[in-house]
Amino acid sequence: MSDHSPTTPPDGPRNGPPVSGREFDVLFDEVRTWGRWADAGRGAWNRVTAGHVRTAVSLVRSGTVVALGRPWDTVPGPDNAKPALHFMSDLGDVEAPEPSAHKDFIGADYHGKAVSHLDAPAHIAYRGRLYGGGAARELVGAGGARFGDVAALGPLVTRGVLLDLPAVLGTEWLEPGRAVHAADVLAAEEALGVTVGEGDAVLLRVGRFRRRRELGAWDPGEACAGFHVGAVPLLAGRGVALLGSDGDSDVRPSPVEGVHSPVHALALAAMGVPLLDNLDLEALSAACAEAGRYAFLLVVAPLNIPGGTGSPVGPVAVL
Amino acid sequence: MSDHSPTTPPDGPRNGPPVSGREFDVLFDEVRTWGRWADAGRGAWNRVTAGHVRTAVSLVRSGTVVALGRPWDTVPGPDNAKPALHFMSDLGDVEAPEPSAHKDFIGADYHGKAVSHLDAPAHIAYRGRLYGGGAARELVGAGGARFGDVAALGPLVTRGVLLDLPAVLGTEWLEPGRAVHAADVLAAEEALGVTVGEGDAVLLRVGRFRRRRELGAWDPGEACAGFHVGAVPLLAGRGVALLGSDGDSDVRPSPVEGVHSPVHALALAAMGVPLLDNLDLEALSAACAEAGRYAFLLVVAPLNIPGGTGSPVGPVAVL
Amino acid sequence: MSDHSPTTPPDGPRNGPPVSGREFDVLFDEVRTWGRWADAGRGAWNRVTAGHVRTAVSLVRSGTVVALGRPWDTVPGPDNAKPALHFMSDLGDVEAPEPSAHKDFIGADYHGKAVSHLDAPAHIAYRGRLYGGGAARELVGAGGARFGDVAALGPLVTRGVLLDLPAVLGTEWLEPGRAVHAADVLAAEEALGVTVGEGDAVLLRVGRFRRRRELGAWDPGEACAGFHVGAVPLLAGRGVALLGSDGDSDVRPSPVEGVHSPVHALALAAMGVPLLDNLDLEALSAACAEAGRYAFLLVVAPLNIPGGTGSPVGPVAVL
Amino acid sequence: MSDHSPTTPPDGPRNGPPVSGREFDVLFDEVRTWGRWADAGRGAWNRVTAGHVRTAVSLVRSGTVVALGRPWDTVPGPDNAKPALHFMSDLGDVEAPEPSAHKDFIGADYHGKAVSHLDAPAHIAYRGRLYGGGAARELVGAGGARFGDVAALGPLVTRGVLLDLPAVLGTEWLEPGRAVHAADVLAAEEALGVTVGEGDAVLLRVGRFRRRRELGAWDPGEACAGFHVGAVPLLAGRGVALLGSDGDSDVRPSPVEGVHSPVHALALAAMGVPLLDNLDLEALSAACAEAGRYAFLLVVAPLNIPGGTGSPVGPVAVL
Repeated sequence: MSDHSPTTPPDGPRNGPPVSGREFDVLFDEVRTWGRWADAGRGAWNRVTAGHVRTAVSLVRSGTVVALGRPWDTVPGPDNAKPALHFMSDLGDVEAPEPSAHKDFIGADYHGKAVSHLDAPAHIAYRGRLYGGGAARELVGAGGARFGDVAALGPLVTRGVLLDLPAVLGTEWLEPGRAVHAADVLAAEEALGVTVGEGDAVLLRVGRFRRRRELGAWDPGEACAGFHVGAVPLLAGRGVALLGSDGDSDVRPSPVEGVHSPVHALALAAMGVPLLDNLDLEALSAACAEAGRYAFLLVVAPLNIPGGTGSPVGPVAVL
Repeated sequence: MSDHSPTTPPDGPRNGPPVSGREFDVLFDEVRTWGRWADAGRGAWNRVTAGHVRTAVSLVRSGTVVALGRPWDTVPGPDNAKPALHFMSDLGDVEAPEPSAHKDFIGADYHGKAVSHLDAPAHIAYRGRLYGGGAARELVGAGGARFGDVAALGPLVTRGVLLDLPAVLGTEWLEPGRAVHAADVLAAEEALGVTVGEGDAVLLRVGRFRRRRELGAWDPGEACAGFHVGAVPLLAGRGVALLGSDGDSDVRPSPVEGVHSPVHALALAAMGVPLLDNLDLEALSAACAEAGRYAFLLVVAPLNIPGGTGSPVGPVAVL
Repeated sequence: MSDHSPTTPPDGPRNGPPVSGREFDVLFDEVRTWGRWADAGRGAWNRVTAGHVRTAVSLVRSGTVVALGRPWDTVPGPDNAKPALHFMSDLGDVEAPEPSAHKDFIGADYHGKAVSHLDAPAHIAYRGRLYGGGAARELVGAGGARFGDVAALGPLVTRGVLLDLPAVLGTEWLEPGRAVHAADVLAAEEALGVTVGEGDAVLLRVGRFRRRRELGAWDPGEACAGFHVGAVPLLAGRGVALLGSDGDSDVRPSPVEGVHSPVHALALAAMGVPLLDNLDLEALSAACAEAGRYAFLLVVAPLNIPGGTGSPVGPVAVL
Repeated sequence: MSDHSPTTPPDGPRNGPPVSGREFDVLFDEVRTWGRWADAGRGAWNRVTAGHVRTAVSLVRSGTVVALGRPWDTVPGPDNAKPALHFMSDLGDVEAPEPSAHKDFIGADYHGKAVSHLDAPAHIAYRGRLYGGGAARELVGAGGARFGDVAALGPLVTRGVLLDLPAVLGTEWLEPGRAVHAADVLAAEEALGVTVGEGDAVLLRVGRFRRRRELGAWDPGEACAGFHVGAVPLLAGRGVALLGSDGDSDVRPSPVEGVHSPVHALALAAMGVPLLDNLDLEALSAACAEAGRYAFLLVVAPLNIPGGTGSPVGPVAVL
């Protein structure tokens, strides 16, 4: 059995260095922005002013539109433990006949490794606290989240930056378990001619779906390339508004003792930075390479779900 | 009981003139664009070239972002026969503890009168034929649509035009049943200083949600303001790519003998023009009025559902 | 507007006498059986021994089988705020062709007024305590109930007794809001020639679905005939194992100050007596009248849902 | 890797003899009972008269109640491609406070290998024909089945017979792929002291869940013990009303050329005999062995789903 086996991901050889729980807590406090914005529930999206919107729009050159959402995946697999639902509710034979209507039901427990989705701040609590410091137990119940929900976020229009790590490193993909460090971000900026700035959406490509297409599916909960927590202060210092990835931004296995998704905790709970998980960045990678530009207009348009901890999305990049 | 009763909509006094089935068929053939595009499944979205995208982007002035999606509505009512589902699948107590994760399931049989959604061409067949002429019975099955599905459409970035009829007419809303005619469209263009053109997305505001807020919900399947079929040739001649509304674009009751949703039939099945139903256009109306401009960048980012006849959406306007 | 209006139920003229919160708490303690059984999660079903099963079986005379489950109701209405889901997932066109298979998805948020269902003890907590005294907050979470769930209950085979109140009173139904008192139970026993005993399932018919068929649907949350809490000590003294009804056993509006479903609280939380709600008892009423017997074999076969607070069911009576 | 590997089921060494498509069609005609009953939609359940019910009830000796339904399985796996859904819709924090209510949503696309369920006649068509000869395409649509649905079946109370093959053969289970022949049925009758008769429900135990517990899950669609079609004429001759199994009654791989589920086709489409799939028969096996009796009262109480092609069930045996 080769070490590229789709069902047996390689051990993450470089998910480290390990980080102790205590070190992580120091890091959490370092990047924390609680209390910074009046409209706390929107978190770091407060960074995206009308001026940022105008700047983002001004990046459009060719008018090329690239969709970043994966196909709605109804088939279970190692990376799809909660298959999405899609049923036809009318095939033109249920309601009045002319015109005939075809209708469908969709459903998804969308957090996980398969559905392209946005994480709102309410998705994650660290030590029982949501972004801003409120107690999760009081703010999130069976009726949904009363703080930091996706309806409070609304849509995002901003500058997107693709950190195309495989392109920078000259590989097809990053091996599962490969941590992306601050030095990698800086090297990518240099190589790709782009600088992450205030209000930007940073999209980290690790080549997951390229690898999946060639080697088959594996469980990214076991091993996936993504940011090491050590890279987060750099991103925090730049004032990012959103992190997205074809993984889920966290390198796995987690290098942090006792914390299974440390980048989630830092981004969502400390910094109020929403996440985009499970994007398909293959077409965007090709489009950026062709255009020779890695910054673009990005539009994220979640469903308006009051109390929702996120939303399935189909983000759009315009080059 | 007043004639503004929320549960007893007034009879549509001006949904006419009545149109016979034969006249409708002539109209259908008149606006039909079958065979026009190589990528037939995308229908009229083929009209939106990269040049249109650039033009749309160039409309942005203030950077004001307006969301057009209604709240995900889980409460049944006269306009919500199939309430959307929203359940919490994890309240931080199901999976590993740190960070704790809040997760939710969403589901919807989204066609209807409550969920803001996109209709893909596969949603509607007239006389058994989908857009392009294929037999619906062969192209749509329990596994979904094999032609004209929402995954084939992808996202849309184009110029949006708001036909704000109540603003033009100086009313709070159009009464349910009020038909919007070609003359209304022309008058709106004149009054609002905008001209619908090739590749545009036309958003028709009838003030449904303003009326609903003030008078309560009613069944828009019984009575709703919307286009009379007689207005469609004008829109077809202009080369529209998308029709959207806070209703569903069709005036109801239908003025066409034996055809319950004639604008749907013309737009989707004859012209390949997708529809946006149940948008909340109140904030956009205010934003356009304030800006004094009724054309803007519009982004529609449906979920990437292979075989789907549409998608719940949260479209975004940028002024 | 007549006082039989389907949408405006009459005020419950006789839902009283009113009961104070303090009186209710005394009643709760009076009927409480916490600590009585080793297998506490099965509550009063511990009363149904193998001997009771044999007795129940011995009641069968004619071999007439009567189904008590309402049709799965996918249509919203005043008594169906959360319509059940039913979608075809395969119409013989999704999987391999011979034989062709038709498949369907069902779904329901089944507690409410429309689906025939069993309430397990975990469904209800009073003052934060489940049956047995455990804290609901610790025992029930997003993953389900860890005590008193329907999987712990399993099926029930016992003697069923139909208290057919309209038959006793010579009416078609009890008016919504009519309370059923201990005296009514005793009178029914006398008139119907049956005595409720240890381990029995008591089915209270109020004629809800007869009334619904003739006058239309109304919201039984607003007004429904059912037991007054004053009748519960009698039932408790008899050692009932299960209460069922074509309503939900509670008279509504509740006569108890500050407690919306007091019979639910007494039965489930104090006595560990599961409930069957929304049964269709019309056919059983006719069958019992024809047989001249109101006791029979009853089988309740819930779905085996670990953590479930109940289950949709189709109980079966055999006369 | 041992030949008991849970993920690599052994090839079915004895799923044969192979049967040609032509031979199968002859068999189909041989066992076909189309036109036999006035209430055709109930199929072979017409065999179960009130007299059969009385006989079944008279079998009860000890009063032991055994549940046959598997736990509702929300975890995907090789035998669970469509995990069932279970979400809490209220944890006592959504509706009015006292008593507090815990509520849940369940959902399932229940046909498959994981949910214990009943197949109604409408589930299967052979050569486009449902039981009775009606065209599936006309009788089953997006709104469900208009013939042979589970609501037409209603509940079943009859004599159950456990054909406990592993007990007969002195093994823990039948290996996946092992066909059960007429000779096996006769040998089991002899060994277990029971004779299958008119109106009986035959439950075939192959020990699937014993094997699964010890060796792990595998895909029973690839290999599972079950009846060879050659055993069906014997069962047909005996007048069985129902077939059930801890598999799905069909040996897999199918020995019939071009027919993936031939016992399903014969039972449902030719004979109108409903099926119970994925039962957990381990406890029943132990109870029958202890009692020394393999015939008992069986109650199958499906949900009353109009148009449903079956139902999740929790059947009950009473010894």
